[in-house]
Amino acid sequence: MGKTTDAKQNFERLLDRMQPMVEQALKRYAWPSTSAPARLVEAMNYSLKAGGKRLRPMLVFAACEAVGGDISEAMPVAAAFELVHTYSLIHDDLPAMDDDDLRRGMPTCHKAFDEATAILAGDAMNTYAFQAILEGVSDPVKAGAAALELARAAGLEGMVGGQMADLESEGAAADIERLRYIHAHKTGALITAAVVCGGIVGGADGAVLSRLRRYGQQVGLAFQVVDDILDETATAEQLGKSPGKDSAANKMTYPRVMGLEAATKHAHELVESALAELKGLAKAEALGVIAAYFVARTH
Amino acid sequence: MGKTTDAKQNFERLLDRMQPMVEQALKRYAWPSTSAPARLVEAMNYSLKAGGKRLRPMLVFAACEAVGGDISEAMPVAAAFELVHTYSLIHDDLPAMDDDDLRRGMPTCHKAFDEATAILAGDAMNTYAFQAILEGVSDPVKAGAAALELARAAGLEGMVGGQMADLESEGAAADIERLRYIHAHKTGALITAAVVCGGIVGGADGAVLSRLRRYGQQVGLAFQVVDDILDETATAEQLGKSPGKDSAANKMTYPRVMGLEAATKHAHELVESALAELKGLAKAEALGVIAAYFVARTH
Repeated sequence: MGKTTDAKQNFERLLDRMQPMVEQALKRYAWPSTSAPARLVEAMNYSLKAGGKRLRPMLVFAACEAVGGDISEAMPVAAAFELVHTYSLIHDDLPAMDDDDLRRGMPTCHKAFDEATAILAGDAMNTYAFQAILEGVSDPVKAGAAALELARAAGLEGMVGGQMADLESEGAAADIERLRYIHAHKTGALITAAVVCGGIVGGADGAVLSRLRRYGQQVGLAFQVVDDILDETATAEQLGKSPGKDSAANKMTYPRVMGLEAATKHAHELVESALAELKGLAKAEALGVIAAYFVARTH
Repeated sequence: MGKTTDAKQNFERLLDRMQPMVEQALKRYAWPSTSAPARLVEAMNYSLKAGGKRLRPMLVFAACEAVGGDISEAMPVAAAFELVHTYSLIHDDLPAMDDDDLRRGMPTCHKAFDEATAILAGDAMNTYAFQAILEGVSDPVKAGAAALELARAAGLEGMVGGQMADLESEGAAADIERLRYIHAHKTGALITAAVVCGGIVGGADGAVLSRLRRYGQQVGLAFQVVDDILDETATAEQLGKSPGKDSAANKMTYPRVMGLEAATKHAHELVESALAELKGLAKAEALGVIAAYFVARTH
């Protein structure tokens, strides 16, 4: 348990250091003051402010740091990943999708506003993510490369494809290949791309980007395996939502497919592999802290 | 009537010339063969294939031609504008939005598939539009500039902002300023950006891009004014949808705000101004034909 406690404390310290950077990035690049209809902007800001630990922006910053890049170049990219993550939650919560009334203890966007506003707020945030990168990253070639990496990770061959596969899997027989596809796409692709994009705007070369990509794939999968485990084992208080919800909806989860013990072991192995990719990167401490936290977290 | 007949015949000839280019662009850049869930790809293709006259891709090609650009560079951009236009229709048709069962005589996406699939197909197409441009345009600086132009036009300060304002205007008192905002954003912004992006990938300089932008703003507004007029005056057969739908929903329209005659005059003036912007461009014939058609069309 000492290792777990250390991992949590290290992560808390990283949070203290990075949260102000994330808030600055969001304020500058994700909360536009515009002539757009006020209700639309309010719905966007409401959902963005209701955010969690901002793991994706932290990964962008940590990867940029790891390759010795300029953090100011990573700011718009960090904001973009939080925009895309948040839009996906807004649409995922809609009645036609997961039909959730609460997220992190607050009314979901379509409950606080209405369905039409929630659909449009999500659409606007999806588009604004690309605008933030293309306006905010000063080197146009890096901006284009980061925006393309985001598009591939967020779209039909990434996050949205994973959401679709997840919807289709309800009630389906447990199947490790299908589960891997869902996790790798629904959450893994965006986490991986956050790491890769931090490297891109930080000026990493192709070999380093490949290592960052493998790190991202492994921590992304570990994150989801742990999510599944917590959903089976954590109390409602720890989780901030009803545990067992995925089980109840007859969704495939790692513990259901491979058993709780094997799933826990799998998550730890993934993180060990991810950490191995960081050897040789001079300033990879933050990436290491995040990876270790991904298996140590209890909510 | 001779002028109107000419405008329609010229447009038909342009359609004959450009439709194969548009289909080629869509086939190459908008209908991906992927490992994504089949139902998601089917829903995207269903809605894309149910398309209309492909005016936005035509404007991309026409503007690229007007500045002497390479049409192959305009292909991914043309596909991207049709993707964004189509995604906006899919989401606009959803029960929480306009709640339409039919579009162009075919079941809307959420009727042919289901609501969750329609939401995700729209999301995927929004994202894929940026992917198409950033992957397909060979010059990375032009690709970034075109993608940014699209993002600004399609998002909260453009199309989505206009959709939101339109939803909020139902039942509101007729107001020319509000109506102008809705039209300039909901449909005008994307039409304008299609023209500007055609110029960007065609290699136009800043002065020419400014002229293309003014042309786009004027034809974009003219298009919507004529849309409003047709909705008041055309028969169902001409229109392919129930006329008077906007009136029935108590929506603001140009004829309702300024009268039918003044609205018609206004549309013609806008097109005249748009045509004036084309003077000095050597190969602007196609842009001229499209502008003239925008006021001559009867459906």
